[in-house]
Amino acid sequence: MKTSLLALSLSALVATAAMPALAQSDTIETERHDVQLHTITDGLENPWGMTFISNTEVLVTERPGHLRRVSLDGTVSEPLSGVPAVDARNQGGLLDVAVDPDFANNSYIYISYAEPNPDNDKENSTAVARAKLDGNALTDVEVIFQQYPKYESTGHFGSRLVFSPEGHLYITLGDRQTRKDASQELDTHIGKTVRIWPDGSVPEDNPFVNKDGALPEIWSYGNRNVQGAALHPETKELWASEHGPRGGDEINIIRAGNNYGWPDASYGINYDGSILTEHTHLEGAEQPHYYWVPSIATAGIMFYTGDKFPEWQGDLFVGALRDRHVARLDLEGERVMHEETLLKGDIEQRVRAITQGPDGYIYLLTDDPDGRLVQVKPAND
Amino acid sequence: MKTSLLALSLSALVATAAMPALAQSDTIETERHDVQLHTITDGLENPWGMTFISNTEVLVTERPGHLRRVSLDGTVSEPLSGVPAVDARNQGGLLDVAVDPDFANNSYIYISYAEPNPDNDKENSTAVARAKLDGNALTDVEVIFQQYPKYESTGHFGSRLVFSPEGHLYITLGDRQTRKDASQELDTHIGKTVRIWPDGSVPEDNPFVNKDGALPEIWSYGNRNVQGAALHPETKELWASEHGPRGGDEINIIRAGNNYGWPDASYGINYDGSILTEHTHLEGAEQPHYYWVPSIATAGIMFYTGDKFPEWQGDLFVGALRDRHVARLDLEGERVMHEETLLKGDIEQRVRAITQGPDGYIYLLTDDPDGRLVQVKPAND
Repeated sequence: MKTSLLALSLSALVATAAMPALAQSDTIETERHDVQLHTITDGLENPWGMTFISNTEVLVTERPGHLRRVSLDGTVSEPLSGVPAVDARNQGGLLDVAVDPDFANNSYIYISYAEPNPDNDKENSTAVARAKLDGNALTDVEVIFQQYPKYESTGHFGSRLVFSPEGHLYITLGDRQTRKDASQELDTHIGKTVRIWPDGSVPEDNPFVNKDGALPEIWSYGNRNVQGAALHPETKELWASEHGPRGGDEINIIRAGNNYGWPDASYGINYDGSILTEHTHLEGAEQPHYYWVPSIATAGIMFYTGDKFPEWQGDLFVGALRDRHVARLDLEGERVMHEETLLKGDIEQRVRAITQGPDGYIYLLTDDPDGRLVQVKPAND
Repeated sequence: MKTSLLALSLSALVATAAMPALAQSDTIETERHDVQLHTITDGLENPWGMTFISNTEVLVTERPGHLRRVSLDGTVSEPLSGVPAVDARNQGGLLDVAVDPDFANNSYIYISYAEPNPDNDKENSTAVARAKLDGNALTDVEVIFQQYPKYESTGHFGSRLVFSPEGHLYITLGDRQTRKDASQELDTHIGKTVRIWPDGSVPEDNPFVNKDGALPEIWSYGNRNVQGAALHPETKELWASEHGPRGGDEINIIRAGNNYGWPDASYGINYDGSILTEHTHLEGAEQPHYYWVPSIATAGIMFYTGDKFPEWQGDLFVGALRDRHVARLDLEGERVMHEETLLKGDIEQRVRAITQGPDGYIYLLTDDPDGRLVQVKPAND
C-alpha cells in the first residue's frame, strides 16, 4: 500500500499548494496599473449579480435561485430565505440584485429573476421583486414588475437593475431569443428597457405613457439582451451593454424613447457566419456608441470612480463571457479613446458581473458552477 | 545538364505562376465588404506620398528623391526633372505630394521633403516647394516653407500636405527625434503643425500671429511626428495620425492653437518597456481622439466617401507600418464606434500612404525598396 499512501500524500500536497494560488495571483501587468487578483471565495454556483450592503459585505445571487451574503473575509452565508421561486432552466434563474438608494434606512433590496407562469410551467418572463433584508431572510416580498407577456423560452432574460439619481429603477430586458421582432413593438416588454418607481408605479414622464397601445413602463426599445448597465458618473445617463448575435455586441447610451434597432439593424452576423442583416443603419434608430465584431459576449459593466486606480477613473469596464476577460474602454467624457483587453487568461472563467466596492477595489463575479468572487487590487497594495 | 534544365524550367514556371498572384489577389473577406487587391505596379523605391492628377494618373514620390507619374494601367514614368535636392538619409527624403485645389487651371503641385542645409551637410529640416507640373518636368520651383531651425537629425520629418476648404495649406511636422522638448516651445517649427497660404504667406487669423516670440505659421503644437492627415468630410477639420513612441499612436483633431501634449503627456512607453511619462493628461493639452497601445505605427490616413464601398462611407482608414495592415475606424460623425483590422497578412509590406481615387477605389502605397501601388476594390467588381 506504500504507493497509494504516496499518491495520497502527493495529492494532499498539491491541494494545499494550490490554495494560495487561488487566493492571490501573481502581479499582472496592464497598460497603466499593475494589479493582483484576490479570490474572496469560490464555490458559488453560477453567480450572476451582486451589490454591496456594507463596506465589507456583498449580496450575491446564484442563478439556480439562491441569494447569499458574502463577507470580504470569505465567509459565505447559507441561502437567504424568502426568495421567490425562479425558473432556472438554461439562462433563467435568479439574476440581478440591487439595494435601494435609501437602503440604510428602509432595508429594501430588489432582485430580478425568471418568473415561472403558475398556469403553464413552460412559460416564464423576467420579474422584479422588492423585499426587506432582515438578517438571512427576505421579508415583505412584493413583485413590482412582470415582463409582459409570459412566453415559452429559456433564453434572453436581460436583466440588470440600476437606480437613477432621481430614484427611478431601470430594468433591462431581453428579446426572449425567439421573439426578436417584438423588440420593435411597443405593446410588449420584450426587447425593452423599462423605467419604474421602486413601488412598481409608472413615472408620469416616461416616453410612451400617452401613446395608445404602448406599455407605459417602456423607456427604450429595439434591445436584444441587455446584461450590463450602469450610470455614467458625470452625465448620470444609463449606459448598457447589449449582448449581440455572433458579432455586434454593443455599448449603448439608453435615452428616453430611443430605438436601438434590433433586430432590423445590427453589426452582428449569424452563427453560421452569414450577415444577419445588411442594415447597420436604420432610419429612426440609434447607432451603437461602441461595438465589437466578433462578439466578446458582453455582460456586466461598471464605471470606475475610485482612488485605488487613478489612471482608470472615468473608464468603462465590461465583463466578457467568451474570452473570459474584462474590456477597459478609456473614456474622455463619453468618447471612447481606446480599448484595452484586461485579465485575458488570468481569470479562466466567464466574467458575468463587475462592480466597484466601497473600498475602491474592483470586484468580479465569474459565471461558473464553481464560480468566484474576485477582488482586483493594485499589485503593491 | 538535364537536371539544371529542369531546374531552370521549374523556376521559370514558378515565376510565371507568381505573376497573376501579384497583380490580383484572391477575395479577402472583411466585416462589411469582400475585397480584392490589384497591384497597379511594384518596383517603386520606398514610395511615400501620392496624389491623383487625373482620373487615371497618380503622382508618386519615392523617398530617395524621385517623383513619378504612374498610370492606373501600370505605366510608370521616368523620374520627373526639377525636383529639389533632398537629404535622403534614414527617414529623410522626398515625402508628400499634393495638387493645388485649382490644379486644373494653374498646374501647381506641392512637395514636402527633407531639405539639406547648404552650409552644413549634417543638418536639414522639412521644406515645402511649389512647382508647375509640365509633362515630366517641374518648372517654376519655389520653396514656400522651411521648418525652422535646420537641425542635425535624420528622423521625424512629418510631413503631410492637406488643403483646407478655404485654400490654406496645412503642413504636418515632426519633433526631429532628439528635439522633442522643442515641441512645447513656440519659437521653432519643431513638433508643430503649420498653416500657410500656398504662396508661403501667413494667414492673418493663425492662432499665434500676435504672440511675441511665436512663429506665426504655427497652427498646433505638442505633436511628435505626424505622418498622416486628412480633412473630415463633414466638419472639414484636420484630422491627423501621430506616430507615437512604442505605444501611444494617436488620432487627433488638429484645431487652432491646441497643444497635443507631446512630450509631457503620452500613452506611450519607451522602447525598453518602461512608461514614458506617468502623465496621460496634461493641464491645457488635448487628449487624443483615439489611440493605440501597443503602437501600430500609424502612417497615412484617409476618410472614405466613395460609392464603391457603401458601408465604409464616413470611416477613417489608417495605414499601419508595423503590422502591415490598414485600420478602419467606423465613425458615426466624429465618434469612433469600432475598429477593424483590415488586410493584415494580405499586403506584406508597410502601408505608408492611403488615398481614395476619383473612381471610388482605395489606393495604398507600400514603403519598401520594392514598393507597390495597390488598388483595393470590391471582390465582385
